[in-house]
Formats: sequence, structure tokens, C-alpha cells
Amino acid sequence: MNEMRYDWLGDRWVIFAPNRLLRPDNYHDLAHRHSCQTITSSKEGHTSNGQRCPFCLGAEDQTPPATLTLRTDRQSTSDWSVRVVPNKFPAIDAPEEFCLRDEKSDRSTPRSDLFMRKQTRGGHEVIIEAPFHVQSITQLPNDHAALIFEAYQQRLKYWRNVQSMRYAVVFKNNGADAGASLVHAHSQLICTDFLPSDVLKTQKRTIEYQKTHGRCYACDVLKEELLANQRIVTQSESFVALCPFASRLPYSVSILPKHHQSAFEACSVDQLRELATLAQQTLLAIELEHPGAAYNYVLQTAPLDDHDPAAFHWRLKILPRLIKVAGFEWSSDCYINTVLPEKAAQDLARHLPACSQRPCVHTSVPSQICTN
Amino acid sequence: MNEMRYDWLGDRWVIFAPNRLLRPDNYHDLAHRHSCQTITSSKEGHTSNGQRCPFCLGAEDQTPPATLTLRTDRQSTSDWSVRVVPNKFPAIDAPEEFCLRDEKSDRSTPRSDLFMRKQTRGGHEVIIEAPFHVQSITQLPNDHAALIFEAYQQRLKYWRNVQSMRYAVVFKNNGADAGASLVHAHSQLICTDFLPSDVLKTQKRTIEYQKTHGRCYACDVLKEELLANQRIVTQSESFVALCPFASRLPYSVSILPKHHQSAFEACSVDQLRELATLAQQTLLAIELEHPGAAYNYVLQTAPLDDHDPAAFHWRLKILPRLIKVAGFEWSSDCYINTVLPEKAAQDLARHLPACSQRPCVHTSVPSQICTN
Repeated sequence: MNEMRYDWLGDRWVIFAPNRLLRPDNYHDLAHRHSCQTITSSKEGHTSNGQRCPFCLGAEDQTPPATLTLRTDRQSTSDWSVRVVPNKFPAIDAPEEFCLRDEKSDRSTPRSDLFMRKQTRGGHEVIIEAPFHVQSITQLPNDHAALIFEAYQQRLKYWRNVQSMRYAVVFKNNGADAGASLVHAHSQLICTDFLPSDVLKTQKRTIEYQKTHGRCYACDVLKEELLANQRIVTQSESFVALCPFASRLPYSVSILPKHHQSAFEACSVDQLRELATLAQQTLLAIELEHPGAAYNYVLQTAPLDDHDPAAFHWRLKILPRLIKVAGFEWSSDCYINTVLPEKAAQDLARHLPACSQRPCVHTSVPSQICTN
Repeated sequence: MNEMRYDWLGDRWVIFAPNRLLRPDNYHDLAHRHSCQTITSSKEGHTSNGQRCPFCLGAEDQTPPATLTLRTDRQSTSDWSVRVVPNKFPAIDAPEEFCLRDEKSDRSTPRSDLFMRKQTRGGHEVIIEAPFHVQSITQLPNDHAALIFEAYQQRLKYWRNVQSMRYAVVFKNNGADAGASLVHAHSQLICTDFLPSDVLKTQKRTIEYQKTHGRCYACDVLKEELLANQRIVTQSESFVALCPFASRLPYSVSILPKHHQSAFEACSVDQLRELATLAQQTLLAIELEHPGAAYNYVLQTAPLDDHDPAAFHWRLKILPRLIKVAGFEWSSDCYINTVLPEKAAQDLARHLPACSQRPCVHTSVPSQICTN
């Protein structure tokens, strides 16, 4: 049973999940993470210790039963193209496992106002992005990538309807430096019954802006960004990819719908395909600019309740992990970014012609597929 | 000239310092940081590309002139034991370089309320912790380590007297995963004319607590922690080292004075020596528990102005970098910690007998000292 503890000074809850130490790690064990010797790729379909990759086709028994499977039209040798499963090592307990905590039994917290804890319930799922051992969403054909975004959408819709849920986010950790433990392309969804402090802050601020100006903050920023054209990486009919004006990390890119849309779940099928194209192009540009770079992306959709749909504007934030967060940042939450977003946008845009022409590595299930 | 930009949604300022890309890097260049192949040690007194280490004795011409040098009694072959210099690649511009910015000349920010920027002035210094090529403060004799803390104290006192300065922090990045670019043992001091958002938040909360309860928040927590004795790693007459109840990272340790003290600068010479001992023991315990682990530490002293001395309680926060910050944390500022602080304290305390007996690697200037 996991628990949350309140960091009073920082005004933020921390989730304690010791069970997550047990999860397999393609890169390195916790005890060796410091050594800076990491494995960026593993033998096709296998983890670094020779075990079968739990996300490959044929290893479905290594994960809990799927909550969703999707299939591209052309997929012939597999029952699924994208598969969503509950995380075997969840950071958040499932709703049915929730029980009230007996505060009196806790001897280590004599003054409960100083040592606040509570449990959180919700969901923690893994979106397995392909049945074969591909390492990046950029290696997949566009219709397959669109299916991944459709899986995000369907699972977010599911969690939006679960009682008491307040926050849901889809995120991807790609590469050891971005916190990934398995190399097989995957993303995750976490849903909670509380709003984390940063989410609550953003929500309050966007609602306040909407009340004051009668418009969405992101819509106002987008209008100016498109006019100035200094930080735009690329755009399509419905979306724009730009390097945010005050991004904390070098080469960060946000993809937003051009016209106000509060929830990502409202995207049409055509928009999902367009978004997948733009995301693949942007990620490929980052991979070309910084070969093998680890990155995170986070899909920030409208909170599940108590929000003003006219205020929140969803976005996909891509965060390359080229530099390490250091002591000054840990002390102050003030980041030192070494690359101006104007330069980052220019550097990434230069790769776009190559990105749109590059053939996919995996257009179908490859012969090296893991079957043992 | 560096600049700060305001992240309106996150309500935080970001410092842009492209000049810092030019600094030497023992570990790897920005373009190769993703590769996960880092150099944990370099040839004695040299950077990875064969150049002379700029922090070694004899390379003083590679850094700006010292703002402070200190010397242990026994140091015979060197003019200095600890040397403080302005950072050659500062994140913060020195006060004399400050000038008002011409907002009108900026074409990329048509609406200044959406795209706020300003300059910050202050200091960015490097504390070179030894004249020889030692990589960890734990390898130094205790009187030498105490001298490092004395250097922190003297420079903090200096910056506290510079007009308009509001925030000063000493921090250490040890190892590539903690953001270090050079292996030679060093720490840094950054001083700014603004209060970063997290510092301001903490300041407000501690003052509020003091007003409500008539006591310091940290004093109240310490009293309970010492009673419960569940998260204490070690203690001395004046200080206690504990794993905080809601720490964001596994094996985090905070060292605090047992009796209320607002500013670290108020420590006596004896207390500095005691603090150095406790810090060395704790860091050595971390090194023994997780050999070679990267870590940051941050010395959080009272803000330079506008604070209530009865509310703020200084601390040295040690943050081992055993796990990577991942997508969920970037999206929410809600951390998932895999190790309960009670277990971390127990694991670290186990090493303490070995820590107090371990001889120092460098009791004097070694023969391999870099002189070329």
C-alpha cells in the first residue's frame, strides 16, 4: 500500500512507492545508477540480463490483462498494435484497494499536523506502443503513431468517468536519463484523486486570466507567437509546435491546438493523426539535433473536475533531457537554461525537411520479433 | 548579458545563460550527454580532453583572481587550501555589468505582459575545495573540510552586505548526474537580487507558522523527530542529520542546528568544525551505501532581507541523485520516491562506525599533484 506525505515547507505532496524498486530495469539497477554506465539499447526483445522483454508480442503473460488493445488495419501477424495494461508496479493504488488509514497505529508521526500523510487512489497504466521491440515512436508509421494517441484518448476518457478522479496525465520517459527503465517504446498514464500543487497553481492562474481578460491565456500567447514567428518549430492546420518563451530545459517544445480546446480527449480522429505527424516530426528533429537524446513528454489535458473549459488549453510538452538539474535548481526551483528558445526553434526547424521524408524503420512486424 | 524570463503559467523565473555552454566539461559535451557514457574520473589533474584541470594548484591563471583564499595550518607546499573565484561562466551577471534593458528594441515580445523579461544581478562564485585533484570532500581531513565551510561563511557574509542582494545559496554538484562539469572537488555560490519562487513560498510559510504558533516550524519538527527517533541518521552536540519525512529523492538527508539559528553565517568556529564532521560522515555513509553516487547539496541560509529571524532555520540539504526525475514529476511537481526515509536513515546509520574510523585519503598535498 503506497502513501503520500506532505512536504509542508514546499507545500507539495510526495508519493512513496517502495514497490517500484522491484520493477525490471533495462538500463541499470538503482545501486548502479550512479556509475553513469548505462545500456542505451538491449538485445532485440530482451532486457539487459537476458530476460524476455515483457512488452514484446508473445510476452503478454508477463503483464496484467490489457485494459485496451488497438490494431492498425495492416497489422496481420499480431492481435494488437498498441496495448494498454495496468502498471505491474504502480505508484498509485487502484480504487478497489483503497482503505482508510489507521492514523493511531503510526508511532513515527506523533504530531499529525506536522507529519501529514494520506493515501491516493487512481490508476497507473502502461501504453505499450508496438508489439515489436522498437525504441522510439519516430520509428513507427504515422497511422501506428496515431493509434497510440487514440489509446491515450480512450484511456483518458475512461478515467474521466471514474468517480472521485481529479487529475490524469499521459507521459513518456524515453531513455535512462529521462527515467525510463525499459527500452521498448511505451508511455504511461497516471490518474489521481487529488490535484498536484503545480497543476492546482496552473489551474488557478488560467481561470484568473480568463476572468480578467475574457480570453484563454494560451490563446493569447499563441496569437503573439504566430505573429512574431521567432519560436515556431513547425505547424499544421490544427496544431503548432513551438519552443516556449521561458522553458526550463534546452530544446523544449510544446505542441498546442491553434484553436481553443480544453481537453485533448475532444480531438477528432483526423486531428489525432495530424498531432501524431507533428509529434513524430518534432521528436525526430530533436533526435537528429541531439542523436540518442533522452526525453520526456507530457500530455497535459484539462483536469478532470472543477475547471473552467474556457480557461484551460491542452498541450503536449516535449522535454529533452540534455542537461542535469543541479543544486541551484533543487534549492530554488529557478532553472538555468543554456539555450534560448529562439535558437532551439531555429536548430530544430532546420531538420524538418529531412523529417518529413524519412522512411519508417518499422512499417510492419519485423522478422526479428521476439517469440521465444 | 544574461536575462531572466517569466514562466507565467508556472509562476517562476527562468535564467537564460547561453555563455555557460562554453564551460569546460570533464564528463561530456552537451551534444553527447544523452549517450549515457560519462567519465567518472579523469587523469589526475587533467580534464578528459587532456587539458590541465583549471582548479589544480599551478593553474590559478585559468580562473579569475581569487576573492578569498584560506589555508590550513599544516599546508606547507601551497599558498592555499581553499580558494574562491568568480565563476568564469556565470549564470548571474556581476552588479557592475548591470544595465537597464531597452524593451522597445525587442521584436520577439510584442506584448510585454505575456513575455516578461528582466535582468538579474548578483554573484556566481566557485569554491575550489583543495589545491590537489581530490574528487570528494570526504577524502579531506576534517580541519580542511571545516575550512570549506568557513569559506562558505565568509563569502555569504560578503554578499549579505552587498546592496540590493536578496538571496544567496551555496550548492555542490558532485558527479555528472548531479550536473557537475568538472570532477575536481568544488562548490558554488549564487547570489541574486530577487527571491526565487520556491524561496519566497518557504519564507512566507515559515513566517506564517511563526506568527500562528509563536515558534519556528523547523524547531517543532526537530523536537518531534528527536523524540520519535525513526529518521535520525546521526547527531552531534549542535547538529542533527535526518532523512526528512517527505523527501522528494531517495536517501535525502538534511543537517540542521538543534537550537534555533536563522543564518548559517552565525555558526561559531567550533560549530563549523562539528558541521564539517557531520557532513563528511553523512556523505561518506551515502558513498558507502551507493558507491560513486552523484549528489547535490544545498546550504539554505536565511534570505538576505525581509525575513523574520525567528521563523527561518538554516539547513544543509544533501540530495543523492540515484533516480531520474521523470515525466510525471515534470508535469505535476509531485515526486514519486521509492525509498521511505525511515529505511534510508537506517541504511545510512549502519555505515557510521566505518565512517568515523576511515582515514582520509589526502592528509596532505599528494605527490601526484598537477604541476605541468
